[in-house]
Amino acid sequence: MKIVIIGAVAGGASAAARARRLSEDAEIVLLERGPEPSFANCGLPYYVGGKIESRDKLLVAPAQRLRERYRLDVRTLSEVTAINRSQKTVSVRDLKTGDYYEESYDKLIFATGASAFKPNIPGIDGDRIMSLRDLPDADRLHAQVTLKSGAKAAAQRVVVVGAGFIGIEVVENMVHRGVDTTLIELSDQILPPWDREMIEPLHAVLADQGVHVHLSDSAVRFEDDGTELIVHLNSGTVVRADFAVVSIGVRPENTLALDAGLACGDRGGVITNESMQTDDPDIYAVGDVAEVRCSITGDATQIPLAGPANRQGRIAADHLFGRESKYRGTQGTAIVGVFGRAAAMTGLSEKMLRRSGRSFEKVYIHPADHAGYYPGATAMSLKLLFDPEGGEILGAQAVGTNGVDKRIDVIAMAIQAGMTVYDLEEAELCYAPQFGSAKDPVNMAGFVASSVLRGDQPIVHAAEVIESVAGEPAVASDRHGFLLDVRTPSEFSAGHVEGAVNIPLEQLREHLDELPREREIVVYCKVGQRGYMATRLLAQKGFQVKNLSGGYTTYLRAETPQSVLA
Amino acid sequence: MKIVIIGAVAGGASAAARARRLSEDAEIVLLERGPEPSFANCGLPYYVGGKIESRDKLLVAPAQRLRERYRLDVRTLSEVTAINRSQKTVSVRDLKTGDYYEESYDKLIFATGASAFKPNIPGIDGDRIMSLRDLPDADRLHAQVTLKSGAKAAAQRVVVVGAGFIGIEVVENMVHRGVDTTLIELSDQILPPWDREMIEPLHAVLADQGVHVHLSDSAVRFEDDGTELIVHLNSGTVVRADFAVVSIGVRPENTLALDAGLACGDRGGVITNESMQTDDPDIYAVGDVAEVRCSITGDATQIPLAGPANRQGRIAADHLFGRESKYRGTQGTAIVGVFGRAAAMTGLSEKMLRRSGRSFEKVYIHPADHAGYYPGATAMSLKLLFDPEGGEILGAQAVGTNGVDKRIDVIAMAIQAGMTVYDLEEAELCYAPQFGSAKDPVNMAGFVASSVLRGDQPIVHAAEVIESVAGEPAVASDRHGFLLDVRTPSEFSAGHVEGAVNIPLEQLREHLDELPREREIVVYCKVGQRGYMATRLLAQKGFQVKNLSGGYTTYLRAETPQSVLA
Repeated sequence: MKIVIIGAVAGGASAAARARRLSEDAEIVLLERGPEPSFANCGLPYYVGGKIESRDKLLVAPAQRLRERYRLDVRTLSEVTAINRSQKTVSVRDLKTGDYYEESYDKLIFATGASAFKPNIPGIDGDRIMSLRDLPDADRLHAQVTLKSGAKAAAQRVVVVGAGFIGIEVVENMVHRGVDTTLIELSDQILPPWDREMIEPLHAVLADQGVHVHLSDSAVRFEDDGTELIVHLNSGTVVRADFAVVSIGVRPENTLALDAGLACGDRGGVITNESMQTDDPDIYAVGDVAEVRCSITGDATQIPLAGPANRQGRIAADHLFGRESKYRGTQGTAIVGVFGRAAAMTGLSEKMLRRSGRSFEKVYIHPADHAGYYPGATAMSLKLLFDPEGGEILGAQAVGTNGVDKRIDVIAMAIQAGMTVYDLEEAELCYAPQFGSAKDPVNMAGFVASSVLRGDQPIVHAAEVIESVAGEPAVASDRHGFLLDVRTPSEFSAGHVEGAVNIPLEQLREHLDELPREREIVVYCKVGQRGYMATRLLAQKGFQVKNLSGGYTTYLRAETPQSVLA
Repeated sequence: MKIVIIGAVAGGASAAARARRLSEDAEIVLLERGPEPSFANCGLPYYVGGKIESRDKLLVAPAQRLRERYRLDVRTLSEVTAINRSQKTVSVRDLKTGDYYEESYDKLIFATGASAFKPNIPGIDGDRIMSLRDLPDADRLHAQVTLKSGAKAAAQRVVVVGAGFIGIEVVENMVHRGVDTTLIELSDQILPPWDREMIEPLHAVLADQGVHVHLSDSAVRFEDDGTELIVHLNSGTVVRADFAVVSIGVRPENTLALDAGLACGDRGGVITNESMQTDDPDIYAVGDVAEVRCSITGDATQIPLAGPANRQGRIAADHLFGRESKYRGTQGTAIVGVFGRAAAMTGLSEKMLRRSGRSFEKVYIHPADHAGYYPGATAMSLKLLFDPEGGEILGAQAVGTNGVDKRIDVIAMAIQAGMTVYDLEEAELCYAPQFGSAKDPVNMAGFVASSVLRGDQPIVHAAEVIESVAGEPAVASDRHGFLLDVRTPSEFSAGHVEGAVNIPLEQLREHLDELPREREIVVYCKVGQRGYMATRLLAQKGFQVKNLSGGYTTYLRAETPQSVLA
């Protein structure tokens, strides 16, 4: 059996190693266009920023090791220019010599990845416009920001276009290098995969770091006047810099596949079956170039992630040797660090759910990452999305300093298992005061969501309250409901929802006659916990009452107007 | 409805708060023998050690707040001395006045907890012998180790008897206070719930901190000569100290229950049904005083943990108000910090499985907590126990510096869901280089275990190799198998299994003719990964081969002789 693999990073390298473990006799040719196989793609921004000091660290499986340990025929700087399906060969160009040759295959694995999307903007092809997808990109950026011998840093100002994963990591690393950084994002938030109110606190983090953030804006023209780059934004703003990094998304590297007549999806990904086989049974596609199914909705999608790419590589190799290995789909678990904070998610976000038209309920909590009585506890925010009937978990997002990855990983597992919010109530997780709480944030999210589904705690969301307040601002007793703030007077006076009446939870029982019986009461506290108790109390006393999920904390984040934070 | 709750810490306090949320009208009396309700039990060692500076921090729900917020009738320093089931009353002694009174109940919740077990050793009742279970204990210990005004610390030497959770936390905190610390443990390891080879690295951590550890030893006599405490050990060793902390386990505080004729189990816990109801339908038992079922085996057991206690409290309150809430059992998820390291576990250990006679397979891995190419990665060891037929996960243990809690929490969730090792292969977890790896340790454990079950990787365990080596030490080609070390020559020369032959993985294919075909080959490397590749290679070439699970790393830990580390 002769296996040819196009692309030697995550999916391709995993497929090659797995194929060798399954067959000592197979001939395995690994063709890589770049200078190195199996480099640490996700480490590139940190090499540019200097957190990873040595470039060698990025070469996680050097060609030499792949040859010796796995007997792989690794050929770097080897670009496949065509697939000839009838002859079962690929045309390869040796980028070192410029020579072409044909390589035959019995089975072909497509792992070409995705490339940075380059929008059609005047000036985008200029020398000062860069992207960050592979090692040569990283080398180029690294050279921009590192000191030349005896001289000052080449670049002192950068414009980053696009605030997705790569964009945000580039921003962090540019700041780490001392480069003055401007970030442009078309959406009204950074990290568009997350829901806006969850990401809101990170906008302030960027501002604190001196990053000039322009939301709801975009670059419309790049101009190089010979000494600097002038970036014209849609808003009319002009930003001057030494260079720009464009990171507004990636597109599957599907040219070869399209030329070869392989079926591709709407987003450009090569279509495969559960075993990663394309519509040509001798050709597989894995990693960022492949279209995948969302494991929750079953919808076709493109989710470029390293973990899934590795899994798909294994599965293709398995299937190729006759094993019944199947890909269960991608659930979109992801995390990104932002100056010591982290944003993590798994499953679907609210905006994805809305787009798909699927019904859902959501709750917000704002717990500490470990017992509050032990020093060093930090706050996190967690949003849980679930089916309003059965309680199946549909997605979760968390933002905070510590322990965010842990909670999302636990919920990722629950989603994989098809568990419900009731199961989160019963989760038995590690507890010692340095590590968690007797009622872990995962349990708390389960408690809150379950109480909503059981009808113990009718809730209302910030957007509805904002709408109601906007209707008749200064009127507490407006037709949209009576707003009751059950926090302490000092919390109340430090800031509250317009029109709210303050009766601290502890005194609520003595003031029931001040509350309306004919209208709905919306209760809120800081994070929702006292509001829950007040809701229980009032409901039992015959009031129509709802709790504001996530309390004033979520309210403030939902309320924050779309704004330029520059 | 009048509910009386005996004990106001984890389970009792949770039951009370839940009961109030379910019924605004219920009369809820919370009787607590100690001076404070709802204190942070798990924080006591850290208050003693000074990491938690203020005692007030331990009072997570002060009586005043419970009264105001939940309208609970909280009575501290109130000891229940008898339960009169026929009259449905409890006899209460007011410890402030010494007066007795009767309190009636409709429903009674038993949450008396567990007390430190006091072995019958001469001198154990002396003034210098302490334990750490409640706030007065903590106050007493705190006074021992804190400076008196203008004078030096009262105590400079301590003997801790028992190396379970509390014992180890006391040790850490005594060292933190600068107290010279000796630890005595009957077992041949600290933290007896874990399997010994997993805990082995922590013995060195204690030694590095200057702790004098005596394993396989016990205190047989305490002597107070007026100036110091003399502790006589079973081995004949004599240790002198200012005081001792005895922490050799806890026993359910079941006296009241026994006196009242409630059924208790073999280990003393009050027997309940799934709704935490005792054999008297008007009486519930929750928390450390209750016997629980292991959620995996279904066996009755005693597992004193805060999370389960809280859950049980909720469930008892639910049931009492007619809700069908059921306790799914305890799976024993736990964690303990040891001088910046952590040991965590969930489900069953190997020793528990052996005791129960249940068949199992196990694998070891030694991954980094996050991508090795990103700075700050630390090593961890993970042991996964699973059903040898279906692959259901039975338990996991992890020891390391960072990220140990996360992996055990994820696997805890998998156990709760009844997942298999194959599901761990497919887990989709957070990955960015600061937080994890594209192949997370959880995935790796799944890969290794699944490959064993699929027959791709027959394994052998350290104990079998040790036995075989012990049989005919210096003979590589002994009857027990041929030992093949596939690490590099420099790794080999730094230390290897006696009698092993070194052929680095990279050169193995050229040396196949040096390997025996008639006997089994046991391959090993540092952690098992190269050994896996070598195993695949050799198996395909027709050799009988097995991989040593966890490699030389696990071997060394399993081999370490039982020893006194003082």
